[in-house]
Amino acid sequence: MTRLADSSYGKCNVRLTKVSRSGERHSLQEYTVQIVLGGAFDRVYTDGDNSSCIPTDTMKNTVYALAKANEFDSPEAFAGILAGHFLQFDPVRWTDVSIEQQGWTRIVVDGAPHPHAFTRGGVGTRTARVRREREGASTAWGGVKELEVLKTTRSGFAGFFRDRFTTLPETADRILATTVEATWEYAAAAGGAAASRAAVFDAACRSLLETFARHDSASVQQTLYAMGEALLSHCPEVCSVALSMPNQHRLLVNLAPFGMENPNEIFVATREPYGLITGAMSRE
Amino acid sequence: MTRLADSSYGKCNVRLTKVSRSGERHSLQEYTVQIVLGGAFDRVYTDGDNSSCIPTDTMKNTVYALAKANEFDSPEAFAGILAGHFLQFDPVRWTDVSIEQQGWTRIVVDGAPHPHAFTRGGVGTRTARVRREREGASTAWGGVKELEVLKTTRSGFAGFFRDRFTTLPETADRILATTVEATWEYAAAAGGAAASRAAVFDAACRSLLETFARHDSASVQQTLYAMGEALLSHCPEVCSVALSMPNQHRLLVNLAPFGMENPNEIFVATREPYGLITGAMSRE
Amino acid sequence: MTRLADSSYGKCNVRLTKVSRSGERHSLQEYTVQIVLGGAFDRVYTDGDNSSCIPTDTMKNTVYALAKANEFDSPEAFAGILAGHFLQFDPVRWTDVSIEQQGWTRIVVDGAPHPHAFTRGGVGTRTARVRREREGASTAWGGVKELEVLKTTRSGFAGFFRDRFTTLPETADRILATTVEATWEYAAAAGGAAASRAAVFDAACRSLLETFARHDSASVQQTLYAMGEALLSHCPEVCSVALSMPNQHRLLVNLAPFGMENPNEIFVATREPYGLITGAMSRE
Amino acid sequence: MTRLADSSYGKCNVRLTKVSRSGERHSLQEYTVQIVLGGAFDRVYTDGDNSSCIPTDTMKNTVYALAKANEFDSPEAFAGILAGHFLQFDPVRWTDVSIEQQGWTRIVVDGAPHPHAFTRGGVGTRTARVRREREGASTAWGGVKELEVLKTTRSGFAGFFRDRFTTLPETADRILATTVEATWEYAAAAGGAAASRAAVFDAACRSLLETFARHDSASVQQTLYAMGEALLSHCPEVCSVALSMPNQHRLLVNLAPFGMENPNEIFVATREPYGLITGAMSRE
Repeated sequence: MTRLADSSYGKCNVRLTKVSRSGERHSLQEYTVQIVLGGAFDRVYTDGDNSSCIPTDTMKNTVYALAKANEFDSPEAFAGILAGHFLQFDPVRWTDVSIEQQGWTRIVVDGAPHPHAFTRGGVGTRTARVRREREGASTAWGGVKELEVLKTTRSGFAGFFRDRFTTLPETADRILATTVEATWEYAAAAGGAAASRAAVFDAACRSLLETFARHDSASVQQTLYAMGEALLSHCPEVCSVALSMPNQHRLLVNLAPFGMENPNEIFVATREPYGLITGAMSRE
Repeated sequence: MTRLADSSYGKCNVRLTKVSRSGERHSLQEYTVQIVLGGAFDRVYTDGDNSSCIPTDTMKNTVYALAKANEFDSPEAFAGILAGHFLQFDPVRWTDVSIEQQGWTRIVVDGAPHPHAFTRGGVGTRTARVRREREGASTAWGGVKELEVLKTTRSGFAGFFRDRFTTLPETADRILATTVEATWEYAAAAGGAAASRAAVFDAACRSLLETFARHDSASVQQTLYAMGEALLSHCPEVCSVALSMPNQHRLLVNLAPFGMENPNEIFVATREPYGLITGAMSRE
Repeated sequence: MTRLADSSYGKCNVRLTKVSRSGERHSLQEYTVQIVLGGAFDRVYTDGDNSSCIPTDTMKNTVYALAKANEFDSPEAFAGILAGHFLQFDPVRWTDVSIEQQGWTRIVVDGAPHPHAFTRGGVGTRTARVRREREGASTAWGGVKELEVLKTTRSGFAGFFRDRFTTLPETADRILATTVEATWEYAAAAGGAAASRAAVFDAACRSLLETFARHDSASVQQTLYAMGEALLSHCPEVCSVALSMPNQHRLLVNLAPFGMENPNEIFVATREPYGLITGAMSRE
Repeated sequence: MTRLADSSYGKCNVRLTKVSRSGERHSLQEYTVQIVLGGAFDRVYTDGDNSSCIPTDTMKNTVYALAKANEFDSPEAFAGILAGHFLQFDPVRWTDVSIEQQGWTRIVVDGAPHPHAFTRGGVGTRTARVRREREGASTAWGGVKELEVLKTTRSGFAGFFRDRFTTLPETADRILATTVEATWEYAAAAGGAAASRAAVFDAACRSLLETFARHDSASVQQTLYAMGEALLSHCPEVCSVALSMPNQHRLLVNLAPFGMENPNEIFVATREPYGLITGAMSRE
């Protein structure tokens, strides 16, 4: 006999553009939304009984209708609105809503930010997620991804474990490059004011970037930990942070066959294979 | 104070091509390997002490060296060899090795399969994963992804839950298209003979494809469940299977403005948004 | 003063699914269509006068309406219908229509091809293109892309030009892997019967694959030329063919540091950088 | 008989990272280089005679060696060095070198740009290309791609050509979004000072962005022309410019089924199909 051990379903890549007007000045929010629902949907799977099934097409419509009906100025806030909305339906036991925000900055014309023209920009891609349980538990995360950074010195890797398959030379000076993905969980007591979400995002990104720049790196792992520690120290609203940092190698090119030295000047960037370092830090 | 709550690291996208020769006849295996290790690595993160750190570059070397030193004829078998290898090092508590196999089939020349020339092919992309714990627990998965299927009838969606945001019309006849990703866990008692792994893969793919073709679908969910049920019934070596099936909509085009009817003939394929249906089935 | 030296516009990625029924048996064509128009559109650009501008939205509608109104069984035929249609409008001087066909094959159930269920498959991706001039010139191309092939021996590269930056060793035995893109032009006298287009596609792909398998390769260039020559010899309807073949390197892994030999058994596939070899062959 | 009507070959995706040091301050250039050569290579194709064949591996080595041996501060300058280098070899008749520059900006720490830590940034992706003929002709291009812009008003589309397949409503106020790709040819007399190349890039991007923001758009075509005209007027070193601008539609969502109005507030972004508008402008 077959048992449905687990199930969930939802809608992915719902793309929302919202324009808000304040006189001549327009504001722009672009989100890509993903909604996942869990609950008492077993008979949809096992019996073809759709009476409890909220169509994913309805989820899409709901994104646009609730975007119109509500004011919000952070992806966390809109994720919370959506996560709460779907909990009102009986079969739904939990909701999980993730949002990516496409960043736009105003074009500068004659030295001033333009009221309605934008270009893509900003530091990385802002993310948000809210998960709610019917029983009341609610968790909210903010984050950033595609935050690319590189430092040309103050990074080494030495003293590592060696076995018969180790050929990597030790180095005291290498390029360190990575694309940071960070996800931070808001403390339950952090409050939900949208303004504070944007402030947390700015403080989090600034602490990640500044720590990356300043740190004397003995490994990607150590730099990752220092960055997470700095984020926690600058963002009291955050109770934990998970970081994922691929090691995007820049390998020194061997110019000796051409009679040339290469004192850390000429490198080749390689996409694969790549190291992947992850870690989660929380307050003790 | 900051605590390192969780950590792991490894190497991604290690690409291996292995050629085996039996006289004039060459065999070809192409794998993309990912290795993740967990264990007593805290001081790497917190103190820059690399003495317990196995470089990800060594992991890469190990893939090539163990590929040469061992014979194996399934990605599950090679994943098991790698997962076992890294457990020999003291700091490592668990290992998790995932492999994707690039499928190649022999070019047919003069009606016969060629001994050393290949073209890309096969049904979907075969996957394998082995996770081992130092304490002895070992779990192995096989799978397939990128298995694209479409049926032009015998699929409907009706009788679903409606609220004020529902606009989707009911339908008794639509196109159903999806890209199946399936991951099955081998029962502990299933044995590890490589030959049986290939047989399970073939039986699993055949039961997925045939059930998709035959099923009278009341929803993606119901078809997913039927496919999982069939896989379990045809693969006694498998104890559970997880399926992920995006709903890759083909929408009927409205030709009425041009004075034309459209009796399920002309459709537009849309990439986003898309429904995503998941479910896991196990033996009771 | 600024002059509009050149211009064109059109619609890309129009995705069409057409289902044809013959009793219980359904046939499926999936095309991705691109339409480009050139002509007397200068005042659209220079004066914002849209009176000659056929909206790209209308182009999209036309794809669906003409797909319903016409029978066709090759992408070349449908490209020809579209290219002819837009020439009827006064401002249009030339039309250029490209189509990619998504390949689907019938799922085999109980040993027989299923009447309405399909899985992705086939050799590479079939392409077609038709360009027509108002003055009457019309050119049609067929093609294949994403045709991945690999041979494990009978390929070498030696005797090449050397300068002070050459480090590549000569080799008499290497893996040769590439993804063939071929575009063939139909001879004007070839006729336009759709059936013949499918036969040309099959003969072209077969001659590419068989020649790749059989050829003793002194370079990618030489194999490319042999493949083009074979295609011309097996496809009398074709007057010329252009081939593009990236060299998708499989590099021998150095296992000497681990005390192992590597007699052409263990390779690493690299994605970048890659050589790119192109050539066009015609009948003399 | 088969004739080799055309041929060329080269190396793609050669990735170069160059670090230059001035005391504590490091500068960073990251380029992706493509080299294509044409010439007297027929016997490589037809006879497997490699004596005139410069291996693409040597091209890769040459990129790194010449990057070390030369100082340059623009991709145009380095493309010119490479294009000239390969012309020295007898069989080479023409060279074509394209470069994409990955943009990096200094991380700001304590209000000051950091001497050796960077984050990805900048306006679009800078490109350069140099093509040289043995007979002496040399052409150089600069460019930008992936320059994403959006304006929330001052864009309409009306008065267009209508036929029986036209359903698009006229609009006086829509969102206009595109990703600009611009390629400008330097006038022969423009001189080659690297500093002027950077200045042209800045002036070109500024004129594209400002014109996009200010223009009252009757069509993508008209805005494209205005942008090209502005670029020519602000960049006297440039003799012509080609622009490619996909129409990245933001479609107004119909909220009427939910009893809501939608006065240009809620849109859905669609990726396909998309209009593609191109034009080339030159000085008269």
